[in-house]
Amino acid sequence: MVNYPNGKKSTFAASKTGQGGRGMVLEQDLNQTNTFYLEQDLAVVYKKPTPVTIVKVDYPKRSAAKITEAYFKLPSTTDYNGIYRNRYLDFEAKECSSKTSFPLSSIHEHQIDHLKRVLQHGAIAFVIIRFTHLDETYFVDAQEMIDYIETSSRQSIPYTWFQTHGHLIAYNYVKPVDYLSIIDEYYF
Amino acid sequence: MVNYPNGKKSTFAASKTGQGGRGMVLEQDLNQTNTFYLEQDLAVVYKKPTPVTIVKVDYPKRSAAKITEAYFKLPSTTDYNGIYRNRYLDFEAKECSSKTSFPLSSIHEHQIDHLKRVLQHGAIAFVIIRFTHLDETYFVDAQEMIDYIETSSRQSIPYTWFQTHGHLIAYNYVKPVDYLSIIDEYYF
Repeated sequence: MVNYPNGKKSTFAASKTGQGGRGMVLEQDLNQTNTFYLEQDLAVVYKKPTPVTIVKVDYPKRSAAKITEAYFKLPSTTDYNGIYRNRYLDFEAKECSSKTSFPLSSIHEHQIDHLKRVLQHGAIAFVIIRFTHLDETYFVDAQEMIDYIETSSRQSIPYTWFQTHGHLIAYNYVKPVDYLSIIDEYYF
Repeated sequence: MVNYPNGKKSTFAASKTGQGGRGMVLEQDLNQTNTFYLEQDLAVVYKKPTPVTIVKVDYPKRSAAKITEAYFKLPSTTDYNGIYRNRYLDFEAKECSSKTSFPLSSIHEHQIDHLKRVLQHGAIAFVIIRFTHLDETYFVDAQEMIDYIETSSRQSIPYTWFQTHGHLIAYNYVKPVDYLSIIDEYYF
């Protein structure tokens, strides 16, 4: 969905995720899934644009405005939200390169606060975590993850916890991260 | 909520709206209102970040990554969404400098399509329009505006239409665009 002229994409992705660009694969899979949902009129879910602070913009004559100085901002919310079967959906998606545990430092504290808030107002809120080396993608209810974080002193969640508390999302060619199938099963 | 170091804000705003920066006033009022709602735990509503295509990023040592080439992208959705009383909210906000009518060219066709889609899935969807010279801000149900657009051949909506079909939002110092009061009255 996002166009990077100049072929700079992989550089940008690599530096942003620090994982050799792998951070973008889950995002691409989710974009494809959300586009499928949209085209089939099943749900309306979008990834929010990356928040940037724009400092300088050039307005060359006869061509598009060019941003020449901008900085990444820390997001105050999760990356994805939308609507499905009259319900507000809200989630964050993360790739994890470890095979044994998911480091909690990957999710910002204000994102956890955001998930708590939307839960209070009636959202279906969750986190999608992909263990890249195991090629497994889990759907985790946000409340369950928050309960874990608030009762444990660990700085990470063991992989085995996802096996018991998460729902493995089966890979599907047209909808690579079919999270609505999990929502249908557990929330309706 | 958005910080523009360098004091470039007014230049950017003016050029972006083409209305001497006035386009940002409604946005600021809505940011203030949404922050108030958030702090009072009434609703969780955010403006989506401005979508930009990032082409070039510099990573200077010991300082933040600097975007040196990026372009504005056309948004595919509305600017605001969130949750209130278990319902998904979705809306667009526009300033209008004319005293007599609101030009339909201000709202992109794909934004109208987006509003139609979320309505089908059960959203509370609306448009907030401020007539800047009259200092009046109207709440308009998205379905009503879509019905007008699809049955009229006009390229604009007359101001008088807003007086009869819209709801005037009373100014409030702590919540300058108190759209939840309208939602409470007409949607619950």
